Amino acid sequence: MTEPSTGQPDRWPVVVIVGAGFGGLSAAGALARGAVRVCLIDQRNFQTFQPLLYQVATAGLDPNDVCSSVRGMMFRQANLEFVMGRVDRVDTRSRQVVLDGGSTIEFDYLVIAAGAVSNDFGVEGVEGYALPLYTLDDALKIRTRILLNWERANRSPHLIGQGLLDVVIAGGGPTGVEVAGALAELYGLLRRRDYRNLDTSEVHLTLVEGGDDLLAPFHRASRRAALATLREKGVDVVLSDMITGYEPGRVQLRSGRVLAARTLVWAAGVKASPLAAACGAEQTRGGRIVVNDDLSVAGLPEVFAIGDVAAAVGASGELLPQVAQVAIQSGKHVAHQILRRSSGLPAEPFRYRDRGSMATIGRNQAVVELPFGLRISGRLAWLTWLVLHLLYLAGVRNRFHVLVNWSWSYLTYDRGARLIQDRDRDQLERRLTKHDL
Amino acid sequence: MTEPSTGQPDRWPVVVIVGAGFGGLSAAGALARGAVRVCLIDQRNFQTFQPLLYQVATAGLDPNDVCSSVRGMMFRQANLEFVMGRVDRVDTRSRQVVLDGGSTIEFDYLVIAAGAVSNDFGVEGVEGYALPLYTLDDALKIRTRILLNWERANRSPHLIGQGLLDVVIAGGGPTGVEVAGALAELYGLLRRRDYRNLDTSEVHLTLVEGGDDLLAPFHRASRRAALATLREKGVDVVLSDMITGYEPGRVQLRSGRVLAARTLVWAAGVKASPLAAACGAEQTRGGRIVVNDDLSVAGLPEVFAIGDVAAAVGASGELLPQVAQVAIQSGKHVAHQILRRSSGLPAEPFRYRDRGSMATIGRNQAVVELPFGLRISGRLAWLTWLVLHLLYLAGVRNRFHVLVNWSWSYLTYDRGARLIQDRDRDQLERRLTKHDL
Repeated sequence: MTEPSTGQPDRWPVVVIVGAGFGGLSAAGALARGAVRVCLIDQRNFQTFQPLLYQVATAGLDPNDVCSSVRGMMFRQANLEFVMGRVDRVDTRSRQVVLDGGSTIEFDYLVIAAGAVSNDFGVEGVEGYALPLYTLDDALKIRTRILLNWERANRSPHLIGQGLLDVVIAGGGPTGVEVAGALAELYGLLRRRDYRNLDTSEVHLTLVEGGDDLLAPFHRASRRAALATLREKGVDVVLSDMITGYEPGRVQLRSGRVLAARTLVWAAGVKASPLAAACGAEQTRGGRIVVNDDLSVAGLPEVFAIGDVAAAVGASGELLPQVAQVAIQSGKHVAHQILRRSSGLPAEPFRYRDRGSMATIGRNQAVVELPFGLRISGRLAWLTWLVLHLLYLAGVRNRFHVLVNWSWSYLTYDRGARLIQDRDRDQLERRLTKHDL
Repeated sequence: MTEPSTGQPDRWPVVVIVGAGFGGLSAAGALARGAVRVCLIDQRNFQTFQPLLYQVATAGLDPNDVCSSVRGMMFRQANLEFVMGRVDRVDTRSRQVVLDGGSTIEFDYLVIAAGAVSNDFGVEGVEGYALPLYTLDDALKIRTRILLNWERANRSPHLIGQGLLDVVIAGGGPTGVEVAGALAELYGLLRRRDYRNLDTSEVHLTLVEGGDDLLAPFHRASRRAALATLREKGVDVVLSDMITGYEPGRVQLRSGRVLAARTLVWAAGVKASPLAAACGAEQTRGGRIVVNDDLSVAGLPEVFAIGDVAAAVGASGELLPQVAQVAIQSGKHVAHQILRRSSGLPAEPFRYRDRGSMATIGRNQAVVELPFGLRISGRLAWLTWLVLHLLYLAGVRNRFHVLVNWSWSYLTYDRGARLIQDRDRDQLERRLTKHDL
């Protein structure tokens, strides 16, 4: 391990932050001027802007548009050191984080911001065959699978009847709705332009949601707008049913219905990162770490948990949602708590401010819910969504790129991000040969 | 196979073009208004702008900046059909191209534009361990290897002394010179910003060239400028020596010298695609297909070969270089020859017009040689290089992106394209464990 920058008092406490997502980066940034040394650890060297991953999966944006180099973002912060590595376990007694390969990093304070992973809820076949959408790699796998399937259909049109181009999307939350809307638009483009000689009249995009409405936490008007828009775009929306089993080409629903799709995008939900279990803390539903009201971990006062991995509760005792705003605000909060505690000040409870939520359903259509009951949908909501996402993206350069890509797609109806890279193709073809042909 | 667009006379001859690089796309485009049906085949669904690949390898540009979807470029051409697939062999007797998987495509005319592959010249260890730079995948492998090695060095600084960060570049042609220059600048950024606590005083970038000068085909002034610039940037340039063997950490030179680099970028040269052998045509040095002066293949009048895969000769009988301009011009030429022959007109010989050549050696420095003995170097040459490459890039969208990336890098000295993707990391780590640790 390299030593931190010279000029830093060696006696400053070391804050180790595990995870460079919204929560970890927010905590690290808020410690910039504190009398602490910060060690930020992530298994990847970049931050993923997850709210836009679905656009990578549907060939609207490029990986680099939604991901930013952690070192590139943080190099100005003199009290911060970044380590790329996987955390194998946390030894809270000796206050050490153990990395893959066995090297250790000691801490005075630990912030667990390890995020979440896709949750298959034990449904058979999902782990092996379905495509989750939580990481950049996930998004690229979906994109490659879909584009490659269209190329295969072009060479062997009889496979279309076997569900080669059909996609089922599991989960009617924001991710599922956004994927379904964007996929419907991508399919429209592919039909109209790239494969206009293919007969795709029997190709289906289906969204399956267990509840009786899409976008459950949204207001009824937004939910209705989302449903109407998806159906207009040609998505089959199946409500009050759920997927109970999957093998390629066969999506089994609880109602007994079977959908013949070769691609299942799994956006049904997440669970806390396995790292939540690795520090021995108490866990709640979905593996989330139980935290005190200052976000310190019950029984481990030097350890904090924030964002998707933590079970923070709101003012009325409800579990806070696993969204970017909670992660960002809780990251700032624990940074302040650590600085307060280092100065001998008492802990303060975390208060989440709901800034609203939104989802986009393709071109010109979104639902946005702001505080104080403000709700908009349609084109104005879509513009609001665009502007807010551009502002929240890390880095001027990424904002430029996304703006260029979005303007281009909007004006030309084109999708630029359509490369099938060799290794993705090869990996997929090996798998297809094994399981799918 | 799908049928071509409706309204096309079924009796029009079918021109099959193998390869969607500079040559194949140029031929396809020049056939747009001809009374022929065009079937363009490539194993990838995108064109690679190879002159800028070195910037992907050195984290200056993103894959999508230098690659364009073939369907996206060609969808307006009504007489063209694109097939993504690998050509296994060509049956010139029955006039069929056989794809992987066994399906066949019949042709009346065949244009082989399959390009080249990296040539290891039989040097031991190069095929297994060195990193060529000819495809997008190659470029991403180099980028991932280098960025990951820096992260490893950060965690285990003692490996720096074992050549972990040292890179040897084989070949002093334009590709080798451009990689070396861009890599020196990337290393400068990484040292100055991202890893400023690492001691990298013993890290070496070395360019090895067998001849006694860099950029052999250029004028002496350009060659001297390239050499001086690279040395200024801290690249060790070794002339009149060559690599005779390689294993990770050990680059063996003919002179007996051994360089302890863990990364060898192989830019020493190319040979024709293996497909050149698959049609039974006569081949010359580097596997290139012997062609008549109209670029038809000797003994196979319906078959043409263009670009890197062909051994076209210039006015004074010299073999034309394997560069984009030859491919583009020969593509147009064979398109015209095919249309002429369909109309019963006699063949015309191919005349190559040298439009000049250029190479860039990092920030503000390039050498440009134009026809009529015009030569420039330095900042003006660099600007010329920038403008010409922007103009030659396919697609308005890519030009925008490249312009944004270049402006950003120029103004901020930053490199945006620094993502280490999961699958690349995993693949590399498996390999490192096996061979390198």
